[in-house]
Formats: sequence, C-alpha cells, structure tokens
Amino acid sequence: MEKLRINEVAPRDGLQSQPRQVSCDDKLRLISALVDAGVAAIEATSFVSPKAVPQMADASELFPRLPDPQRIRYSALVPNERGLERAHQAGVREFAVVLSATETMNRRNINMGLPEATNVCASTLAAGIGTGMTGKAYVAVAFACPFEGLVAEDRVIDLTERMFAAGAVEVVIADTIGAAAPRAVGKLLHHAVRRFGAERLSLHLHDTRGFALANAWAAMEEGIRGFDTSVGGLGGCPFAPGAAGNLATEDLVLMAEQCGFDTGIDIAKLRLAMAVATSITGASLGGRTAQWLCAEDARRLKNVEQKAGD
Amino acid sequence: MEKLRINEVAPRDGLQSQPRQVSCDDKLRLISALVDAGVAAIEATSFVSPKAVPQMADASELFPRLPDPQRIRYSALVPNERGLERAHQAGVREFAVVLSATETMNRRNINMGLPEATNVCASTLAAGIGTGMTGKAYVAVAFACPFEGLVAEDRVIDLTERMFAAGAVEVVIADTIGAAAPRAVGKLLHHAVRRFGAERLSLHLHDTRGFALANAWAAMEEGIRGFDTSVGGLGGCPFAPGAAGNLATEDLVLMAEQCGFDTGIDIAKLRLAMAVATSITGASLGGRTAQWLCAEDARRLKNVEQKAGD
Repeated sequence: MEKLRINEVAPRDGLQSQPRQVSCDDKLRLISALVDAGVAAIEATSFVSPKAVPQMADASELFPRLPDPQRIRYSALVPNERGLERAHQAGVREFAVVLSATETMNRRNINMGLPEATNVCASTLAAGIGTGMTGKAYVAVAFACPFEGLVAEDRVIDLTERMFAAGAVEVVIADTIGAAAPRAVGKLLHHAVRRFGAERLSLHLHDTRGFALANAWAAMEEGIRGFDTSVGGLGGCPFAPGAAGNLATEDLVLMAEQCGFDTGIDIAKLRLAMAVATSITGASLGGRTAQWLCAEDARRLKNVEQKAGD
Repeated sequence: MEKLRINEVAPRDGLQSQPRQVSCDDKLRLISALVDAGVAAIEATSFVSPKAVPQMADASELFPRLPDPQRIRYSALVPNERGLERAHQAGVREFAVVLSATETMNRRNINMGLPEATNVCASTLAAGIGTGMTGKAYVAVAFACPFEGLVAEDRVIDLTERMFAAGAVEVVIADTIGAAAPRAVGKLLHHAVRRFGAERLSLHLHDTRGFALANAWAAMEEGIRGFDTSVGGLGGCPFAPGAAGNLATEDLVLMAEQCGFDTGIDIAKLRLAMAVATSITGASLGGRTAQWLCAEDARRLKNVEQKAGD
C-alpha cells in the first residue's frame, strides 16, 4: 500500500486561534493521544511573540516535554532568527518558516512587504540549517488572499523555488483561508510536482467551504502524498478573516484508507484524540466523517446488545 | 463555460425519508423556489405504493400542478408498469426506474432477486417508451451495498448496458448509501464513460462520510457532467441503513462554479429554497458550504452597516 505522510497540526494551527487558553499539560495530553493513534509527524508549537499569539507562549516549556521524541517528527514554526534561536534552545530539530504569497497578507500578518518577508524566510532557513536543523517553508494564501483575491500561479511557483533555493527540504503549499477549489489545486500542484517533485511538496488545506477533501483528492491525483491535517478539524487563522477549520485528520485518514493508502493512523484511537481536543478547547469539533463514525458505533453497539439480549 | 447538468432530487429523494408528512402545497412551494433559483431539471415525485412510501402518496395530485412544465424537465420514479400507468395519467413525460446492483438490496427493497428486478426495469422502460415517454434508469448501490459490501465494477457496467439496451436515454450511477471514495468513483466512471459516453451518464451521491464533493470531483475529472443533488443535502434512503443526506445542491454549485462550470443556478436564490426545505420538513439542513455562505453574509452585512455608520 502506498503511504500518505500526514503532519498533524492541531497542537499549533489548531490551538493558536482558540479563545480559551490551553495549558501546557493539556497540550501534552492532546499530543500523547495523537501519538497513541499512530500520528508520526506533529507541528507541536510556534516560537512567535507571546504577545501576538498568547496561546503559543509556552513553546519553550512544551518542546522539551514532548513524548517519544526519538520516534516522532516534531516541528515548530519560527517567524525569524530570534524565534529560531528560542526554538534551537528548546531542542527543535525541524522548523518551518511561513511566507505569505501576497504583499497585503505579509503586511497585515508580520508588517513587512513580500520582498522583505521572502528575505527574512530565506535568511531564517539559512541560519537554522547552519546550526544543523532541518527547515521547511510554508507558502501561505497560495490560492487566494483575503485581501488581494486570487493569487497568480507563477508567483507561488517562484516563491516555492526561492524557499528550496534557501535550503528548505520541503515546501508546504497552503490554502490558508480555505478558498481554493479542486481545479485550481490540481493545476497548481501539477506544475509544482513537475518542477520540484511530489516528495518535496505538501498541501495544507482548510475546510471553509467544504471543499477540503475534494481539494485533497485533486492533489493526490497529481501525486501529492504529504498533507497537513488537524484532528477534529480544529483550527482557523487569527490573522486571516474568513478562515475556518483545517482539513480534519479523521476525514483524510478515512478517505485515504478507503482509496488504498496507508496512513499509519488508527481511526478509533484518533477519536480519543478528538475527544481530548474537544475537552481542552470546549470547541465543537468534527464534520460529516466524525458523525458517520459515531453513527456506525451506535449501530454496532445496538447489534451487539441485540445479540446479547437474544 | 462548460455546463453542468444538475438534477434536483430534494422533492423526491430528499422528502421521501422525512418523518414529518409534507403537504402537496408545501412541496410545490419548495419546487417553485428551486425553479426560481434556476434549477432546470427536477425529480418531482415517485409513483410508488403509497403504503410503502406515504410521503409520495400525492404524486398524481402533485404532477399536474408543477410550475412552468414547458421549460423545466420534471421526472418521476416508477417502480413497475402499474406505477408507470399512474405516472402517464398524471402527465409525466420523463420517468426513471431504479435497479439495485445486488441481490440482497433488491430483495429487501422490492422483494425480487436481481434477475427479476432487471427484467421488471427493462420491461417498464420498454412500456413507457412505447407510450412516447422518455425513460432513464438508476443503478443503485453501485459501489457498496449495505448488505453485501463492495459491488463489482463489472456487475455495474453490465447492468448499465442492459438498461441502455432496454431504451434508457440516461443511466444514473448511484452511491445510494454514500460509501464510495474517490478512487473507486473515478475508476468505475472511467470505464463507464469509455463504454457509454459521458453525456448519457449521471452520478447520484450521498454525503454520508463527507466524501460527496471529492467523489463528484473524481467523476468530473472523468468527464461526468450530470449530477443528482438535493438542496441543503436533504435526503437519505428509508430502505438503506446507514445512508445520510444527499450531495447538497449548494455544495456542488459553489464548487463547480469556482472550477469554471456554469450550473445556471443562482446560489443566493438557492438559499431561499433551502429555507423553504427547512421550514416544511423541520430538518436541520446544509453543511460546511451553507455555513460559509451564512458567515459571508454576516461579514458583508457588518461591512455595509459599518459604512452606513461612518
């Protein structure tokens, strides 16, 4: 069976926009539940300014406490060299930089223009790699920007190229606000795969309009095998108006396994992680797939009880 | 722009499983709202036994009252020649027969085996065509059967062939319980399109596991341009355990238009139809796409109000 690489982002992208502050212990409970379910790669936190994102203020405390660090690939976002330094001290081996594909999104998010943001990402990648860390890059709002609308494909290909040139081992193409539809996803990734190779690319999707699985399938058809997902669809983006939850891990796992892929994830145990995510955030999580899983359980339980009653 | 053929099935497939009896007047309100939204083809009712499906008992009363019958393509399901006769008397010009692809599903649904059911469908098609009507056929549980599991592709191709041989102008491949995933959908339809031509095929999907849009996209990639949808996702199947709502019309319209297809449907007016569907059934309708549309409205309203306040 062909393998799908799933990078679980609930502890970072999922939690950062939650209004209720989640304790470091609770984050570790969620991460342990994800590890128990078979998740092999986790974006654990972000070394951003605690003022900008209070939910991630405990990054330096969290990282050294992560379970099973020899086996699990943990990564962390860093916005710049200052964040990189903190990440390095906390024991981060794999970091990610985030480059938005439009001028306005960069201005609103980090108060820099696109050329400056590109340079900061490139120099942060170089600095991290220089200390022996592995770096990857996100190209955010790669399909549509909440401020500038549709993003030109050439721009995304060019920024992806620059991030690889700066030493990124992987570039994650991100539909940050969940505005892409499958035709555009397939088209962009067709070009990106031909240019850079599918094994160096991943896709980060949000389910704002309900297209996340259709977009994932369009990408899988182009050979993409790496996806960011968030258990229960936990997520959103505090800086991007209109963003809703991430592509839910259980949605992609169920669909991919039904299509013959091996994700390494046990969906029954994943639901325990979903329950932890719900209990620590108070958020209502999970979409149609989760509802179906619950309904299936209820049906099986009824059958078992009927047999027990016979 | 390439056109997508949408056949709205809420008045039949959507309503038939609703626990609350919907009056003929309320059905006509729903249908009028759908027509106002630009829907050009509607499965209006079913001439089945009123005892088996009480919700469709008013078929003969409803059909002659349908709005704008010269412009809108209305169709009705018929189970056999008796139903066909009633449909003919009510003024039906386009009818559909339903053939389940497995022995057990036919037994449970209409108390016949697969060969007998195939013969009844073929003879009903022939009889209707003989009176000048147009007939199409559904091949139901075409991917998975709730009783027999996965359905062999060859079986579905063979039954499709038989229905065309009996005179069907179109065959609708139906994932009646919403158990298909995009790889299987793409594979079956790839073969069916090569054998029969895309223009004679349609796809009927349910969103049980949240895969409906991904499945629709997989089919669109194979050239399929005809889809059954139900406004708000209204639906289910009273005879198929585990079936949830149909592929929602607003989901497919939004995704297809964003992919450059012309559906002829005005999504703002479609939402009025969704409101009618909710009010006449009491069901909670609509998925992520509908939520997004509501959130977009709220955001626009806020902008307008802010400007008015400046």
